[in-house]
Amino acid sequence: MKRRLRAPTVWLMTAVREMDVVIVGAGFAGLTAARRIAGAGRSVVVVEARDRVGGRTLNQEIGQGDVVEMGGQWVGPTQDRVYALASELGIRTFPTFDEGDELAFVEGKRYRYSGEMPRMNPFALADFAQAVMRLDRLARSVPLEAPWEGPRASEWDSQTFESWLRRTVKTSRARSMLRAYFGGILAAEPASYSLLHALFYVHSATDFETMASISGGAQQDRIEGGSQLLAIRLAEQLGRMVELEAPVRRITQDRSSVVVATDRLTVRGRRAIVAIPPALAARLAYEPPLPGYRDQLTQRVPQGSIIKAEVVYTEPFWRGQGLKGFAFATDGPVIASFDNSPPGGSPGVLAAFVKGDQARRLARLDPVERRREVVGSLVRFFGERAGSPEAYHEFDWSAEEWTRGCYGGHFPPGVWTQYGPALRQPVGRIHWAGTETSTVWNGYMEGAVRSGERAAGEVLAALSENALKESVTVPVGA
Amino acid sequence: MKRRLRAPTVWLMTAVREMDVVIVGAGFAGLTAARRIAGAGRSVVVVEARDRVGGRTLNQEIGQGDVVEMGGQWVGPTQDRVYALASELGIRTFPTFDEGDELAFVEGKRYRYSGEMPRMNPFALADFAQAVMRLDRLARSVPLEAPWEGPRASEWDSQTFESWLRRTVKTSRARSMLRAYFGGILAAEPASYSLLHALFYVHSATDFETMASISGGAQQDRIEGGSQLLAIRLAEQLGRMVELEAPVRRITQDRSSVVVATDRLTVRGRRAIVAIPPALAARLAYEPPLPGYRDQLTQRVPQGSIIKAEVVYTEPFWRGQGLKGFAFATDGPVIASFDNSPPGGSPGVLAAFVKGDQARRLARLDPVERRREVVGSLVRFFGERAGSPEAYHEFDWSAEEWTRGCYGGHFPPGVWTQYGPALRQPVGRIHWAGTETSTVWNGYMEGAVRSGERAAGEVLAALSENALKESVTVPVGA
Repeated sequence: MKRRLRAPTVWLMTAVREMDVVIVGAGFAGLTAARRIAGAGRSVVVVEARDRVGGRTLNQEIGQGDVVEMGGQWVGPTQDRVYALASELGIRTFPTFDEGDELAFVEGKRYRYSGEMPRMNPFALADFAQAVMRLDRLARSVPLEAPWEGPRASEWDSQTFESWLRRTVKTSRARSMLRAYFGGILAAEPASYSLLHALFYVHSATDFETMASISGGAQQDRIEGGSQLLAIRLAEQLGRMVELEAPVRRITQDRSSVVVATDRLTVRGRRAIVAIPPALAARLAYEPPLPGYRDQLTQRVPQGSIIKAEVVYTEPFWRGQGLKGFAFATDGPVIASFDNSPPGGSPGVLAAFVKGDQARRLARLDPVERRREVVGSLVRFFGERAGSPEAYHEFDWSAEEWTRGCYGGHFPPGVWTQYGPALRQPVGRIHWAGTETSTVWNGYMEGAVRSGERAAGEVLAALSENALKESVTVPVGA
Repeated sequence: MKRRLRAPTVWLMTAVREMDVVIVGAGFAGLTAARRIAGAGRSVVVVEARDRVGGRTLNQEIGQGDVVEMGGQWVGPTQDRVYALASELGIRTFPTFDEGDELAFVEGKRYRYSGEMPRMNPFALADFAQAVMRLDRLARSVPLEAPWEGPRASEWDSQTFESWLRRTVKTSRARSMLRAYFGGILAAEPASYSLLHALFYVHSATDFETMASISGGAQQDRIEGGSQLLAIRLAEQLGRMVELEAPVRRITQDRSSVVVATDRLTVRGRRAIVAIPPALAARLAYEPPLPGYRDQLTQRVPQGSIIKAEVVYTEPFWRGQGLKGFAFATDGPVIASFDNSPPGGSPGVLAAFVKGDQARRLARLDPVERRREVVGSLVRFFGERAGSPEAYHEFDWSAEEWTRGCYGGHFPPGVWTQYGPALRQPVGRIHWAGTETSTVWNGYMEGAVRSGERAAGEVLAALSENALKESVTVPVGA
């Protein structure tokens, strides 16, 4: 056994900053909360692990000042808080390109259609439509504030969504289409989450059609300058209140304060907001340790799996063929594509999504092979011209250390009913935000913004209740 | 915004120790691996977060030199590696007390019986027996090395075990009994794991009867001096190779070495073995970050929920009534009790298990109320005398920071088939051990020991293959 003694290394710890509130994570939830708290005259700092703000939104420049998004990007009707935020920040939205025919590849067959649905076998279509109506009806009975309290919560939470599909949906084609839609929407296999979670998610997003549509739905509008611009502008307003490249390692709380220690700085606050997904919140050290009930929740809400590619062409050639660029496929590897060209309409950009099982498979290929598969899907959708992109960008969110999966966390069977109440309940001075905690538009940018507002409200109320007392009892030393 | 600058704190980092192998976790897996590696003439150190060894085993002194176990404790036929280990360490086993009648409380009714099963409604009994036979038959077709490769893996992994129970088992009583048995065995609700996982677990433990029985099964024998003694003796042999109170925070690897940094010491090795559950392995920082596929596995294997109580009486009074102390109840809060008296037969000790939903509920009560509920269950089982214990010990494994749930990790639907191959596959110089990685007796002490032997084998093979090359290329500096 060889042992070598080395000269001790000397570390200088930075000073502890004193704040009213410290926020972990500079995504939409954290930044929104910070803005509201600062607006109420409280001091706040946001500590962020990455060298950028925006969380699961990420702009990618494609030249000529144009950007596309490698992460979350769309807004639609009833996503009021994001529209309001854009408006307050002087950022405009524009409609997603939605003219022309759609394409569907269902169990090996190609469909081109202009209505809402491919003209396939009427039995399969009726079966699909009935399943959607049924899902919508069941979803409405799930209480968004407490999905575990619905009348059939236990029954719905003890089965996978896949079990429901196999039992309820009679035709293979309708099942395949529902798997593709939900796969595209949740970035996870229907075997991975409960029927209750599928119903909660649909209700949280209004209904299936709103969730799945471009015009009139969640993919209706885009953000000029890219969705991350919302976060960038928020951060500009917050200025020195945002600290980048400061991964949080430990949160210590006592009766009078909470101390958030990062690799770079340490902040003492009266309240903290942890605005990162449950699966990442699990990875911080807490002192005292979190109650078992809360900790075990964070072991049980895994992030989805998505690779998003943005494939750039000299022009949106599909438009000339009367196609809108939207296609979905039940077999992948790309399960959905959208026209994601800049507002000026040039160059042409297709956003391509690879989810779940296929994302995991592609992640382990080398980049050249992965690109070949993604572009191959687009050739299948839009013909040979799709085979010669000018540029190709991709992002595997599961590989990114500070995200570890997109779009968001999903609830496997049993988790809502066993652990649901732990999702938003503060632990001492620690409050929880992030789109996973939202009742409305859970999993979307809208949900993130709403969660930030909700958590900010909790914290501001707590500060004003305890203002007098706390201003005396916060200890001065370390 | 008030800001207060404080004097910088000076930290002294300890020297980096150089070893062939560094092992994270001094449970049965880590200690077994260390012993084998040291025995092969390689230098090794085990770093452990707690101030004790033994992981999920924990002795509790009850006076007069007697101990009971707050964690894992039994061994039984085919658990050869634990018996061999005990023998090598000079530790004896003794039979679990198994004389007299058993008790069952099934859906409100009390049964006292001397055979294998309560004499209840023959339809329910036949239903239960058929379900068990069917489970055993299906389980045998699950390949232990690769459960995701079995012929019906995808079908079995996309449903919860609860769905299978509801569909296959006709009588409510048989379903309740199966839920109670599996709840006692997996410490999780049947809604929380897939049918494939249930079948894997049964096969891994030989069959249902072996898993569920005292004599002839997994609860057959106990360890003199308490199960933790195995770990304590192993650690004594390893001596200074075991470092306690050294929580690992970061594992950094490059082409020639792997560096494990704890709060107290830093060790550079040529290989590392992470011998903690996947849910805890998720909480270390890795540099470079782990591949998404491995990381996402660790988001998806949550620990079960168990509170174990050891209730001490002046004597094992149930024996005088012709009872063996074993009881199970379908409704809890205690779902199973066992006679856990010391080998001498005095005092009398009942081990009581509270699992899953009930464990989460009881964890949030105050200790007096929790004890009242646990002892109340024992009174229901064994009468008024059970209401006056001499001593009461309990342990909530979900609350313990370095365990976060017992007995082990379970696989929710979709996880085996989507992420199974990531369970044991090394990532660079990091190897994975722990009972969750075992093919045989997964979830048991036996599985932990076998996983430690397997990982040690991997590491020793890697070291000897690369011995010449590596001894040259390991960098000397930091």
